[in-house]
Amino acid sequence: MSRRRSWWGWGWEDAAVTGDELERLAAMLAAFLGDPGRSRDAPEPGALRLPAPRVRPPGALAGLAEASDEARALHSHGQSLGDIVAALEGDLDAVCDLVMRPTDGAGVAAVLDWCSSANVAAVPFGGGTSVVGGVTPRVGDGYAGVVSLDLRGLDRVLEVDTVSRAARVEAGILGPALEEALRPHGLTVRHQPQSYEFASVGGWLATRSAGHHSTLHTHIDDRVEGMRAVTPRGTLESRRLPGSGAGPSPDRLLLGSEGALAVITEAWLRLVARPVHRAQAAVRFGGFTAGAAAARAVGQSGLYPATCRLIDATEAMINRIGDGSASVLLLGFESADHPVDADLTRGLELCADHGGSADPPTARDDAAGSWRSAFIRLPYVRDAVIRLGHIVETFETAITWDRFEDLWRTVSDRAGGAVAEVCGAGVVTCRLTHVYPDGCAPYFTVIARSRHGDQRAQWAQVKAAASEAILAAGGTITHHHAVGRDHRPWYDRQRPQLTADALAAAKRALDPAWILNPGVLLDAPGSQSSPT
Amino acid sequence: MSRRRSWWGWGWEDAAVTGDELERLAAMLAAFLGDPGRSRDAPEPGALRLPAPRVRPPGALAGLAEASDEARALHSHGQSLGDIVAALEGDLDAVCDLVMRPTDGAGVAAVLDWCSSANVAAVPFGGGTSVVGGVTPRVGDGYAGVVSLDLRGLDRVLEVDTVSRAARVEAGILGPALEEALRPHGLTVRHQPQSYEFASVGGWLATRSAGHHSTLHTHIDDRVEGMRAVTPRGTLESRRLPGSGAGPSPDRLLLGSEGALAVITEAWLRLVARPVHRAQAAVRFGGFTAGAAAARAVGQSGLYPATCRLIDATEAMINRIGDGSASVLLLGFESADHPVDADLTRGLELCADHGGSADPPTARDDAAGSWRSAFIRLPYVRDAVIRLGHIVETFETAITWDRFEDLWRTVSDRAGGAVAEVCGAGVVTCRLTHVYPDGCAPYFTVIARSRHGDQRAQWAQVKAAASEAILAAGGTITHHHAVGRDHRPWYDRQRPQLTADALAAAKRALDPAWILNPGVLLDAPGSQSSPT
Repeated sequence: MSRRRSWWGWGWEDAAVTGDELERLAAMLAAFLGDPGRSRDAPEPGALRLPAPRVRPPGALAGLAEASDEARALHSHGQSLGDIVAALEGDLDAVCDLVMRPTDGAGVAAVLDWCSSANVAAVPFGGGTSVVGGVTPRVGDGYAGVVSLDLRGLDRVLEVDTVSRAARVEAGILGPALEEALRPHGLTVRHQPQSYEFASVGGWLATRSAGHHSTLHTHIDDRVEGMRAVTPRGTLESRRLPGSGAGPSPDRLLLGSEGALAVITEAWLRLVARPVHRAQAAVRFGGFTAGAAAARAVGQSGLYPATCRLIDATEAMINRIGDGSASVLLLGFESADHPVDADLTRGLELCADHGGSADPPTARDDAAGSWRSAFIRLPYVRDAVIRLGHIVETFETAITWDRFEDLWRTVSDRAGGAVAEVCGAGVVTCRLTHVYPDGCAPYFTVIARSRHGDQRAQWAQVKAAASEAILAAGGTITHHHAVGRDHRPWYDRQRPQLTADALAAAKRALDPAWILNPGVLLDAPGSQSSPT
Repeated sequence: MSRRRSWWGWGWEDAAVTGDELERLAAMLAAFLGDPGRSRDAPEPGALRLPAPRVRPPGALAGLAEASDEARALHSHGQSLGDIVAALEGDLDAVCDLVMRPTDGAGVAAVLDWCSSANVAAVPFGGGTSVVGGVTPRVGDGYAGVVSLDLRGLDRVLEVDTVSRAARVEAGILGPALEEALRPHGLTVRHQPQSYEFASVGGWLATRSAGHHSTLHTHIDDRVEGMRAVTPRGTLESRRLPGSGAGPSPDRLLLGSEGALAVITEAWLRLVARPVHRAQAAVRFGGFTAGAAAARAVGQSGLYPATCRLIDATEAMINRIGDGSASVLLLGFESADHPVDADLTRGLELCADHGGSADPPTARDDAAGSWRSAFIRLPYVRDAVIRLGHIVETFETAITWDRFEDLWRTVSDRAGGAVAEVCGAGVVTCRLTHVYPDGCAPYFTVIARSRHGDQRAQWAQVKAAASEAILAAGGTITHHHAVGRDHRPWYDRQRPQLTADALAAAKRALDPAWILNPGVLLDAPGSQSSPT
C-alpha cells in the first residue's frame, strides 16, 4: 500500500511527529521557550469548506482535472510556516479551482492553451515544497480562475548517457526516484537540497535550487546541459551542450524563472560517478567569526570540499553535535576517482591556522552522521513545533566575505531583537550552508515562542526585520529558497528595475495572456498581487 | 614613446612578421601548400577614400568624437580573416561614421541618448578583437549613421577587495593592465583568452569569453559577481554577490549579449591567488580519439587541471611540439595553496590507462613552453600568412562526449573536403581547448592555399561547410568566439525561436530605438543585416 502524503504539512502522513516524540519535543520547548505549547491537528480537507471551483476545463482536458477537496487543499500551499499555519487553521491564503495533471509535454501545452484562452492562471506544482509562496495560487483578481498544474505525471528518466555522464529526465520526478534510476549506472546527480525527498527536478530548475554540497557546483544551474519547456506560445528546447558562448544562455533565462516564463518539462542534467573515497572531520572554533575565517580559507584554497558547513554554537547544540560552547565546521571531501585524505589534512591545517581543533576520528563521524540525519528529519520536527503553536522558520542569504561579519551581526541582532520584542522568547541561530571563494551563504534559523492564532503575524514581523537587515547589509534576499510571492517586496528592490522591465517584456513574448504563475517574480499588469 | 596599434591587423605595428621571419614563413608555406604566396602590405588609412561621415554629434559630445581616417578604419573591423583581407584590400565591409570615446558611464549614457534620438546605431568597441564581425559596423540600412563606441577610456581598476578576492574594474581595461594592477595584491583574474593582450574586460563579458585554462571555470561567466551596464533607458547595476537564487540572474542576461542589450561599463570580477605550485607534462597518444578518451577520463576525475589541451598530430608538428606521429595532451596543474604533484601523477595514470605515454620531464617543459609562446605569437603569424595571400582561420564548437567522435570526424571531413575542393591544398587540424566532465570544445584550424582576391570567397565556402557540419552533428556554432554577425545564419537555427522572441522583447524594453549593435544576435526589425 502506498504511503499517503500530508495535505497540510511536510512529507508522509505516517512520518509525522506524534506520541512520545511529540511529548519530548514539547518538554524541550517548555525548557527552552517557557511554554510547551499545545498541539493542534489539521482539519480534514472536507472540513475546509472550499469555495466551489469557478472554472471547468473543456471536455478534452476533463480527464486531467481533479477537483477533490484534498487535492485542491494540498495544491494550494507550499511549506512555509505561513502555509502550514494557514492549513492548520483551515484558513488557506488562496485556493486553486482545479488541479490539472498532464502526463507529457503535449498535455502541458493543452492546459496552457486553455488557460490562455479562458484567462485562467496556471501555477506549476512539482513537489509543492516551496517555502516562499511559489506554488500558492494567490494570483490577483484579474483571472477567471486558477489551476494548479501538477507535473508529477512527468516522472520518467528518458535517457542515461553513461559516456558523457548525463541524463534526460522529466521535470516531475522527485530526487529519490531519480537517484534510484541512476544507481545501476553508478551515477548520481549529487544534488540534495533539504527538500530532496519531495522536491521535483523541475522545481530545482525553476527555483535555482542549491544542494547539500557546500562548494563549487552549489546551485543546480551548473548541472544543466539543456532544457525543454512549454510556454503558451509553444515549446522551447535548448541544445544539449557541455558549454557554449552562443549569445545569452537560453537555459539561464529559465533557471530561476519560477514558472512565470515557461513550464519546464524536461532537462538534460550532468551527473557524477558515485563517490567511493571519503574523508571528513568536525572542527570546533571558539567563535563563529573564527570559524568563518577558516571556512573562507578553505573556500579560497581550491580544495573544493563536498561539505564545508559552519554551524554556530547554539545550533550545534540543538542539533546535538555540540555542547553550546563552540561553533562546529563540518568538513568533508569525497571523490569517485582518488583518495582525498591529503585534501582533508590540508583543510584541517587551514582550520588550525584559524584556531580550529578537530575532533578525534570517532567523534567526527558521529557529528557528521548526526547532522545528516537531523537534516533529513528536520522538516517533520518543524511541523510539530508549528503544531504546538510556536514559531520555527529559516531564511538565508549570500554575501561577499568583506561584508560577511557585518551582515551576520546585523541580521542576527535585528532578527533577535524582533523575536524578543514580538515573541518574548526565542533564538536566532546561523550556519554557513555554502562557501564560495568570494563569500558565503549564511542560513538563519528562528525558534520563538508563539501561540495559536498569533504565529503568522508574529513571524511576518520577524521576517520583515530580517529581510530589511539583509538588504541593507548588501545581501541577496534569497540564496536558494527562491523569490516566490513572499520575497517580492525585497526582491523588487534588489532587482535592477531594467532587469524587471526586460523580464516582463520576455514574459509578454512567451506568455501573451500572462497566465503563468502571476505574482511570482512579476505582478500581472495593473494588479498588485504581492504583499507590500 | 608609445607603441602604435596596427589599424588593419593584430596588435602592435612593430611586432608584425617581417624580413627574415616572413621569408621563412613563405618558404614553409611553399613546402606545405605548394606556393610561397606574395606578401602585400596594407594601404595607409588615408588611401582608403572613406565616405564622409554622415552624422555629427551635438556640441556637448563633440569632444568625445573622432573622425580621422585611421580611427574610423581601425574601428570598422575586427580580426577575422575576412576583416583582415578586407583591410588589406582597402575594401572595408562597412565604415563607421565616427568614433566616440567616452571616459565614464555618464559619457556612455550621453552618447546612447544622442544615438537614440538621432537614429544612429552604436557599436561597442573594446579591444576590437572580435573574429566574428561583432564590432563591424554593418548595421543595415535603417540608420542615419553608425558610431563605434570605443570604451578604452574606461580603463580603471576601481577597487580591489583582497578579503573576498574580487575587483571592481571598468570595462575598457585590457588583460595586461588589469593583471598589472592586481599583481601587487598577489591576485589574478586567471583568464587568458588568446586575445588576452588586446581584448577588453567588457568584451570578455559581452562575448562570454573563455580563457586559456581548460577545465572548471572556463568562461568568464563564472567569474562575475556583479555588473554595471548602460542602456538607452538608463543604468542597470546588479548586486555584488558570491551566489544567489533570486530570479533569473541579471548578469546572465547580459553575459553574451554582445552589445545588443546594453553597454557593459563595469564589473566585479572574482580573483584567485597567484599559483605557486605547478606540475605539468606532455603525453603522447597514437590517435586523437585515444587522447580524447584520456581527456574525458581526466575531465571526469574531479582533478580539475588548469591545462588539459589535446592537440592533434599535425597541429602538434606545426607548433613544434611533436613530429607528426602522435597527438599531444598538455596536462598541467597549479595551485596557490598546496602541492599538485599527486594530481599530476593521478592524471598521468588516467592517460596511461588510455595508452598515453608521458614525455620525460625535460621534454615536458619544452612542449608546454613552446606551446604557450606559440599561442601568444600566433595572431601575428596568422596575419603574415594572410598577407601572403593564403588562408588561415579557426573555428570552434562544443559537444557532449557521446557525440564527440562523430562530430570531430564529420567536421574534419567536411571542412577538409571543402579545402580540397575550393582551395586545392591545405589542412584542417583540431585541438580540444576545453574539457568538461560531459564534453569538450574542439577547436579547428584551417591552413589552405589561396591567392589575393580569392581569400574571402574561398574561406566563406569552407566556413559554411564546417558550420553546417557542426550544426548537424549537434554542436554549438560557437564555444567562445561569440556570434557576432558572421555566425548569425547558424546561431539563428541553433537558438530556440522563443528564446529569440524573448531576447528581442528584452532588447525592445532596454533599447526602444534599437540602436545598440544592430545585426549582432538580432536584426533590426524589418531589416536583414546578417549574411544569409
